[in-house]
Amino acid sequence: MESGAKRWGCQRKEELTAASATTVRGCLNLIRSNVNKDSSSSVVPLGSGDPSHFPSFRTTPVAEDAIVDALRSGKHNCYAPTVGVLPARRAIADYLNRDLPYKLSPDDVYLTVGCGQAIEVVTAVLSRPGANILLPRPGFPHYEAWCAYNRIEIRYYDLLPDKGWEVDLDAIQTLADQNTVAVVIINPGNPCGNVFSYEQLNKVAETARKIGILVIADEAYDSIAFGSTRYVPMRVFGSIVPVLTLGSISKRWIVPGWRLGWIVTSDPNGILQNSGVIDSITGYLNISSDPATFIQAAIPQILENTKEEFFSNIINLLRECADICYKRIEEIPFLTCPKKPEGSMFVMVKLNVSMLEDIDDDMDFCLKLAKEESVIILPGKIRISLSFPLSETNIQRIKDAGRAVGLQNWLRITFAVESCLLQEGLGRVKAFCCRHAKKQ
Amino acid sequence: MESGAKRWGCQRKEELTAASATTVRGCLNLIRSNVNKDSSSSVVPLGSGDPSHFPSFRTTPVAEDAIVDALRSGKHNCYAPTVGVLPARRAIADYLNRDLPYKLSPDDVYLTVGCGQAIEVVTAVLSRPGANILLPRPGFPHYEAWCAYNRIEIRYYDLLPDKGWEVDLDAIQTLADQNTVAVVIINPGNPCGNVFSYEQLNKVAETARKIGILVIADEAYDSIAFGSTRYVPMRVFGSIVPVLTLGSISKRWIVPGWRLGWIVTSDPNGILQNSGVIDSITGYLNISSDPATFIQAAIPQILENTKEEFFSNIINLLRECADICYKRIEEIPFLTCPKKPEGSMFVMVKLNVSMLEDIDDDMDFCLKLAKEESVIILPGKIRISLSFPLSETNIQRIKDAGRAVGLQNWLRITFAVESCLLQEGLGRVKAFCCRHAKKQ
Repeated sequence: MESGAKRWGCQRKEELTAASATTVRGCLNLIRSNVNKDSSSSVVPLGSGDPSHFPSFRTTPVAEDAIVDALRSGKHNCYAPTVGVLPARRAIADYLNRDLPYKLSPDDVYLTVGCGQAIEVVTAVLSRPGANILLPRPGFPHYEAWCAYNRIEIRYYDLLPDKGWEVDLDAIQTLADQNTVAVVIINPGNPCGNVFSYEQLNKVAETARKIGILVIADEAYDSIAFGSTRYVPMRVFGSIVPVLTLGSISKRWIVPGWRLGWIVTSDPNGILQNSGVIDSITGYLNISSDPATFIQAAIPQILENTKEEFFSNIINLLRECADICYKRIEEIPFLTCPKKPEGSMFVMVKLNVSMLEDIDDDMDFCLKLAKEESVIILPGKIRISLSFPLSETNIQRIKDAGRAVGLQNWLRITFAVESCLLQEGLGRVKAFCCRHAKKQ
Repeated sequence: MESGAKRWGCQRKEELTAASATTVRGCLNLIRSNVNKDSSSSVVPLGSGDPSHFPSFRTTPVAEDAIVDALRSGKHNCYAPTVGVLPARRAIADYLNRDLPYKLSPDDVYLTVGCGQAIEVVTAVLSRPGANILLPRPGFPHYEAWCAYNRIEIRYYDLLPDKGWEVDLDAIQTLADQNTVAVVIINPGNPCGNVFSYEQLNKVAETARKIGILVIADEAYDSIAFGSTRYVPMRVFGSIVPVLTLGSISKRWIVPGWRLGWIVTSDPNGILQNSGVIDSITGYLNISSDPATFIQAAIPQILENTKEEFFSNIINLLRECADICYKRIEEIPFLTCPKKPEGSMFVMVKLNVSMLEDIDDDMDFCLKLAKEESVIILPGKIRISLSFPLSETNIQRIKDAGRAVGLQNWLRITFAVESCLLQEGLGRVKAFCCRHAKKQ
């Protein structure tokens, strides 16, 4: 039997390679594979925002009980409506209605398979020939992956490290044109660990209104704020500009593997409805996959019964970890942290490569750190090599899409781990930096 | 604030309307909405293949226990690898290795959010400009939806009612050209309730090999066979032709809402590997959503511990229901069933519209049946009307895609319901037909 691609009418789909080459998970896999398996040191994972396997970050029994109750009832083994079961939609609307100047209805809530599918849906819905979107730099590469797949041109506006990662509002105005479909705001910030102020978000809303584009508010880290800036959800400004809120229970309840997220439309002026965006969201959900029905069915109990104490405990833990992280990084030569993290689970750290011997860049730093110290950190920008040739177009796509958080010679460090592990890991980073310092 | 689409840079995405307009769920929703809410009769749902809410079809406690164990361990709240957790992949490979002449490895198994996402993945992976695919008529409209979305041209080969729904092999040969990427075989049959013989599948494999296209074997109803024809999985012929098996626990364990499916590659000759199809599957899964991790983690226990008795009980129930269904339909004037169902949960029934008064076609039949008798049945072909204008291209797409199972003036009846309900429902269908008979 011949095994050539031509003979069998099947071939590599380069767009997929391009879109998926450098997601966070893909990059972390690559770095993890560099760990020396013979080393006696345990691995310190400061790469991903998933502390669920640490005892201190175990989710609340309330959430587990809710799942067991829904499952044991035997009533939720069936298919769910494509937009999600009504009690879950109602509970999420109620949950998000805290402090809103208008009220969301269950019809404004669309359940998704985690926040990841929410990104898939909104990029699919907004894509059209020639469309472009404004993404933050640094940002969350899942947007790049889906924009590349859905052929939406990406235009970056900067988050400004010297101004505490504020949005470069002028850039948003300059970059936008009549083909711009949306601006994405990630708050609390991934990867910067910042929390945008009310005033800043208000300005983003006013700017988007002026240009005439909707706002995609990625609030995966909703309410995970522990600094001096109060967390404000973008949908507060829904009467200024239409807002698509993307969220999930993944981070606040520390259950990313449960895969339950949502898209919420804040559209008091009917703009999304009238322009057909709502129909398109429903259309995409009609053909795509749903979260497990019994997990959907558990949502009302999870949202209503979780004690405030669980959240405050997690917030205190994260504040402690952020403090440790910030202090330890200050002690490490050649690493600079422009702003102490106030939210999410990450901090961005600048790497002074010129002071290091035999370290080419952030990617090289992370690969060698994994090998020598068994510490996993995400580089700001990914260098990739593929085992097969790609067309010029797709190489460009990978260059555009394959960028980790998008800042060369920066690192994204996760502080959401057990504090002793964080201490241990950052100690090893310090030893690594000292060992690789250029001789004076 | 202006609310026009242009002002806000967002607009309806017609492809999504086209792709999703007439999925089974969409069509059944439309028909359900026609039920007279003031009627005292209870609704008899003979539309979808989901008997999970009937007490006789409750899943095994083994499966529920496995989920609870995985959840309560606290070890599976985390993200999973994008291709699925290894123990689940291994368990599925072992499960499918029964009776195979070669052995699948865990690496051949990719977990998906139900069989639905498996269809999404394979159509995305195989799509390319000009590609076409061979689909059965009648068939399962989820293929049409994703092919329309991924712009794969659909070419239909017939299943022949007069030959017990055998595949029209000549048509496959005639329809295929150098742009054909695959042929889809659904076995046990949805919507026909047939089971393909070993000889028939062997011929399909030989034909596909001759043409040089791979086979997508939709085995969502794997092992649900209760007639005289033995069920044989397509992957038995993996050394003749590369096979992508799509499956799930949804139907055999009666848990469609758990959303756990798989793609399995049968590729002993390395064709899928060498042509890059495997890389593309991995690429798509890298960016798309996963099944809940604790449900993945429960798979080994579910597959290994479920007692044979549970399966044989379900099979006996379905055989009984199929018998009742076939007999009752024989008693109904103007309905003909060309073949007694031997598998899956459905039977296809021909409707003699010319003998009925004031019934235009199958869609009209189903809408009026819902209204007058509160019985839900899926029409063979859907007539749709949209509340907004569509371009010619997209109207054509809807005509192509929006077709329910694709046979006008046929009905798909689900017999997988409690037998008393089936009796009641088909009794009402008979009364309806008699009432609407043309006067002699």
